[in-house]
Amino acid sequence: MTRQKKIFLSESEMPKQWYNLAPDLPTPMNPPLGPGGKPLSPEQLAPVFPMNLIEQEVSQQRWIDIPDEVRQILLQWRPSPLIRAYELEEALGTPAKIYYKNEGVSPAGSHKPNTAVPQAWYNKQFGIKKLTTETGAGQWGTALAYACSQIGLECKVYMVRVSFDQKPFRKLIMRTYGSRCIASPSPETNIGREILAKTPDTPGSLGIAISEAIEEAVSDPNGETRYSLGSVLNHVMLHQTIIGLEAKKQLAIAGIKKPDVIIACCGGGSNFAGLTFPFMADKINGADIQIIGVEPFSCPTLTKAPFVYDHGDVAQMTPMLPMYSLGHKFVAAPIHAGGLRYHGMAPLVSAALRDKLMEAVAIHQSECFEAGLLFARTEGIVPAPETTHAIAATIREAKKAKEEGKEKVILFNFSGHGLMDLLGYEKYMDGQLSDYEYPDDYIKANLEAIKDFPMPK
Amino acid sequence: MTRQKKIFLSESEMPKQWYNLAPDLPTPMNPPLGPGGKPLSPEQLAPVFPMNLIEQEVSQQRWIDIPDEVRQILLQWRPSPLIRAYELEEALGTPAKIYYKNEGVSPAGSHKPNTAVPQAWYNKQFGIKKLTTETGAGQWGTALAYACSQIGLECKVYMVRVSFDQKPFRKLIMRTYGSRCIASPSPETNIGREILAKTPDTPGSLGIAISEAIEEAVSDPNGETRYSLGSVLNHVMLHQTIIGLEAKKQLAIAGIKKPDVIIACCGGGSNFAGLTFPFMADKINGADIQIIGVEPFSCPTLTKAPFVYDHGDVAQMTPMLPMYSLGHKFVAAPIHAGGLRYHGMAPLVSAALRDKLMEAVAIHQSECFEAGLLFARTEGIVPAPETTHAIAATIREAKKAKEEGKEKVILFNFSGHGLMDLLGYEKYMDGQLSDYEYPDDYIKANLEAIKDFPMPK
Repeated sequence: MTRQKKIFLSESEMPKQWYNLAPDLPTPMNPPLGPGGKPLSPEQLAPVFPMNLIEQEVSQQRWIDIPDEVRQILLQWRPSPLIRAYELEEALGTPAKIYYKNEGVSPAGSHKPNTAVPQAWYNKQFGIKKLTTETGAGQWGTALAYACSQIGLECKVYMVRVSFDQKPFRKLIMRTYGSRCIASPSPETNIGREILAKTPDTPGSLGIAISEAIEEAVSDPNGETRYSLGSVLNHVMLHQTIIGLEAKKQLAIAGIKKPDVIIACCGGGSNFAGLTFPFMADKINGADIQIIGVEPFSCPTLTKAPFVYDHGDVAQMTPMLPMYSLGHKFVAAPIHAGGLRYHGMAPLVSAALRDKLMEAVAIHQSECFEAGLLFARTEGIVPAPETTHAIAATIREAKKAKEEGKEKVILFNFSGHGLMDLLGYEKYMDGQLSDYEYPDDYIKANLEAIKDFPMPK
Repeated sequence: MTRQKKIFLSESEMPKQWYNLAPDLPTPMNPPLGPGGKPLSPEQLAPVFPMNLIEQEVSQQRWIDIPDEVRQILLQWRPSPLIRAYELEEALGTPAKIYYKNEGVSPAGSHKPNTAVPQAWYNKQFGIKKLTTETGAGQWGTALAYACSQIGLECKVYMVRVSFDQKPFRKLIMRTYGSRCIASPSPETNIGREILAKTPDTPGSLGIAISEAIEEAVSDPNGETRYSLGSVLNHVMLHQTIIGLEAKKQLAIAGIKKPDVIIACCGGGSNFAGLTFPFMADKINGADIQIIGVEPFSCPTLTKAPFVYDHGDVAQMTPMLPMYSLGHKFVAAPIHAGGLRYHGMAPLVSAALRDKLMEAVAIHQSECFEAGLLFARTEGIVPAPETTHAIAATIREAKKAKEEGKEKVILFNFSGHGLMDLLGYEKYMDGQLSDYEYPDDYIKANLEAIKDFPMPK
């Protein structure tokens, strides 16, 4: 009985700084563009975000201190455990050593609170009283509701109507944390009222919900409301790097100098960035590490989209960001991993792909759910549909290691548990799950809308 | 930043033995009684349970080794953290130091896997191929399904029809772990078919589900099926003592010699026994510790029932056990803490109450949900409805400490999270929650059915 299943860090070993990849990128980042295609000034973002977060967004500082009060709240669940997947390894008969970082132990059940807590804190510091946001499947809304309850901010979440109706528990958790969660489109904003007048039965969309949340934030006559985003932006990636920074220390405790392969799923990019960016720094300095982003076949941003300037939302209310994008009008098939259905990719992750610091793979959801089932029945934890993508890629790599007879170290991000998203498993077990793949023509057609946009360098 | 929020033990510090309270009780235990009121022999239980667990059930050995293979599976989440409730203390303005053991970190989200894993393992050792059980709200069924997936046993769960319909996610988790969960009454047993013929629309009951699970176990022509129970029995209490044994080590790390008050909720008694029995041993040896069991006002087993011999189920299929009981025909009001609606109390917990090693308090569910909300918004974790009972009593004690100006150490068991049982919170927040209290006459009437049963010494 000498094998160690979980590697914990003490609370004093939790990182005291976040890591910013931006200054270490081989090619400098392209700036976000505002109206007329001109680089956006920080002031133009001020009605939407507080200035202290805007400063982080554009920062070229490599290490940024985590405020003590933020650390104190993160300690409610962090450092998260690094777990050796002995049972999965045995089931696969692989010589690979598989480790995963369990971000499902947070109060909200995913990695999202890692950025929700600092975002709420910086807003509070700036004198903001209320945050608005949108949520699709509900993970991000839950995380921000939790964070606002800890920090003492009002919080309002616009939840896409179809999810609001299908997932009654999600809105209940947010309410339990003291937040208000309403279905979008709602009668509480101009854009919501307009859409409801035209299409009263609309299921809503993330694009509409973003527009409503931003409208409410910028139209507060007292200027005490701001908007909060759970992925894509640079400061969100920054806050998530605590995952990889912890994982590095934990691997060292396990006697491992460096992982051979690192894997995470990619939706907006935040859990991927969180685990991999601290290791990417080593890769830039010459370390031999394979870093793989995994996306659904039905939303192939990293594997089939071009590197372009595009808007983050359907209504083109957000600035143009330099990123791999399927076009802001692209609507991904209704797969169960709702968090991976975003048309774009975080600019920092996009820059990493362009600079060949990472590679990408697309996997069908049926293979992912099969992987998720095997994981639940071996490691004991039911993964979120998004997380099953990282597990499916891990299993592929572990099988490859078996074929090659190599004792590789594979590290992946267990971004969240699936206790509240089990319907996909049911459909898979009932043999009713469909896989989706788009013909190249469809992907090309969606890119038409952005063909005249400026191109990043 | 010196305050420590969580106290972890290393894996090697996880207890290697369970603690058995039975030999240390001031008054010897009364035996279970079989047909005709005669003491039950181990052989009479053999068709229902494997002999190795029956030996544990009647053991008078103080310390019992935890098998290495069981420890290995428990390490998937254990040792569980001991957490200092700083944020709750601050909200209450109490001088009390509040600690809680977070059993919600298990794969099933509650303390139940602590006994599900060893039960499955001992059955497997005994050559058993399949386990049957019943589940009400779903916590126990989930835990046994998880354990059987780890051990490699077939598992079938009879879930009370009304919960089966109301909580579709619960049966999905069990299925994800590879178990079969069906609604009870079912057409798959004699008793199920009989009941369905008479009352096709019955919502079912825990009593019926127990009867079906036992019938299936004892009628396997190959003798390779057994029944598994998630609470009440001595060996279940034994397996749960790992909670209190860990908590003792963790308090010592925090520099605390002994807690002043220990609190846990009581349904069948297992999470209460698990946390408190190792401390009760100290109390028997003279330590000054107040130990409080908390039950719902609507099922006042410890506070209003007599100490009697009674059956564990409505159909009187189980042996008679010496316990506080409201009568096996007692039907508790439909409160949301389904796990606390049992008419009896574990014989070991009952013996502890009779011997004045503990005291008991009954609390209305509205006070409990209020406590649960405060906990979620301060400590960040949403508690299960059952767990809110322990939190409500903890808050009462913390307020008392404030009035008295005493720096008491209060330890309670956070038996599980409430992510899958949020409807009670919704009703509380909507002002639609009812509290239930029975007139003494109703309680007396239910005891009529057992007035001629033998009486324990």
